[in-house]
Amino acid sequence: MRSPAPRTTLVLGGARSGKSAYAESLVEAAPGPWLYLATAQAWDDEMRARIALHRARRPANWITRDVPTALAGAIAESGGPVLVDCLTLWLTNLLLADADLDAATEALCAACADARGPLVLVSNEVGLGIVPDNALARRFRDAAGRLHQRLAADADRVVLVVAGLPLIVKPQGTP
Amino acid sequence: MRSPAPRTTLVLGGARSGKSAYAESLVEAAPGPWLYLATAQAWDDEMRARIALHRARRPANWITRDVPTALAGAIAESGGPVLVDCLTLWLTNLLLADADLDAATEALCAACADARGPLVLVSNEVGLGIVPDNALARRFRDAAGRLHQRLAADADRVVLVVAGLPLIVKPQGTP
Amino acid sequence: MRSPAPRTTLVLGGARSGKSAYAESLVEAAPGPWLYLATAQAWDDEMRARIALHRARRPANWITRDVPTALAGAIAESGGPVLVDCLTLWLTNLLLADADLDAATEALCAACADARGPLVLVSNEVGLGIVPDNALARRFRDAAGRLHQRLAADADRVVLVVAGLPLIVKPQGTP
Repeated sequence: MRSPAPRTTLVLGGARSGKSAYAESLVEAAPGPWLYLATAQAWDDEMRARIALHRARRPANWITRDVPTALAGAIAESGGPVLVDCLTLWLTNLLLADADLDAATEALCAACADARGPLVLVSNEVGLGIVPDNALARRFRDAAGRLHQRLAADADRVVLVVAGLPLIVKPQGTP
Repeated sequence: MRSPAPRTTLVLGGARSGKSAYAESLVEAAPGPWLYLATAQAWDDEMRARIALHRARRPANWITRDVPTALAGAIAESGGPVLVDCLTLWLTNLLLADADLDAATEALCAACADARGPLVLVSNEVGLGIVPDNALARRFRDAAGRLHQRLAADADRVVLVVAGLPLIVKPQGTP
Repeated sequence: MRSPAPRTTLVLGGARSGKSAYAESLVEAAPGPWLYLATAQAWDDEMRARIALHRARRPANWITRDVPTALAGAIAESGGPVLVDCLTLWLTNLLLADADLDAATEALCAACADARGPLVLVSNEVGLGIVPDNALARRFRDAAGRLHQRLAADADRVVLVVAGLPLIVKPQGTP
């Protein structure tokens, strides 16, 4: 049985903006258990430390599943509140795997539309600095921008987190 | 004859934020034909591809004029709705030509104040990342920030586009 | 004697966003004299020029004190309206001195809570671009994000300045 009001929230924010903690609080507003779809892959010690920090903050009734790329399927299999943290790393993993980004984006949008419980998607806003020197960074930045536009068009709510505080970009209920 | 309510809108946004599409929708809210003042110069294939993409999106009743630097004059000659896309490249062109930026900014502001139709100016927000390593990028970033402040002070409306959605920074009617 | 409504405002913004001028206007809304706690250290000509520009803009009834790192003490000694410009450089100075950032942040928060007059803290938002290549820049970006979250949680008001205009992130009176 589906909940009467499935709701997708896109949470954007800069580095260390508090977007993950804010997104967790949105998910925890619904009754648990809560599913955490983690896209991070621990390539190096810096990343391992970040992952450990995020895990340590979440209480025990979070179920964590590592999903580097197959997000659409994992969302389709879920039955309750879901947090995806974060799309930035998912997109990076897809880019490095030379995947079809448009197809992956559409599959993700379809899965979000069909999700049984509330869904919160976290992603880094990366487009507000100077044009990066290297071509891969520019390609990533463009792909992230397109992804955010596509998801924001469908989302019921879009939030930009600044210094831990939510700036509402698309209030719930906006067509 | 001037329209009773000429109105200048400054549309800021990050890379691939959807700012151009949003700005086009603002211009198309007024009756056409619409004048597109394009500041892009196709230095390389990447830029050529971006220009082609932007052109393909605009319907046939847009008139496109290439104006790498002489924006004030082109606005003065216009008689209806105008979209300037984008100021970032205009500023880059001026910087590379070693032009007087303050004089060019004041001439642009004067032309905006006298424009016959509604005018929408698009520019990249580039100041929200780490300080760039190279001095030219820092000089550009400073010039863009000053330009945005100057234009925003005069504009009737200022919008920051995030993931295709408008965050209103200066609502129409603010003194 | 303490003023009945001490109030801390965190003013964030990008490079050349007009955040300093906006912050000065907030401080000048209270009766002077006003204390300017300057954290900038003139390492080179570019920085010297920036400092001179900021000083030239402030009227004579501002008292300027250079405080590269000992902000908490300077705030504790103050008796009226205070502007701290900016935390970005304070944090840079602490990082370069290999100081304990968490301890310095807590001491700053305690001093803000005890301040006698209204207090306006200015800082650069630096987390909205692509991940920087070099590790020190990433470390700085993380530290700045954590500092902003911590201060924003305590602040009575948080503002993001865009093109010289305030986007209210935390309105006064928000718990």
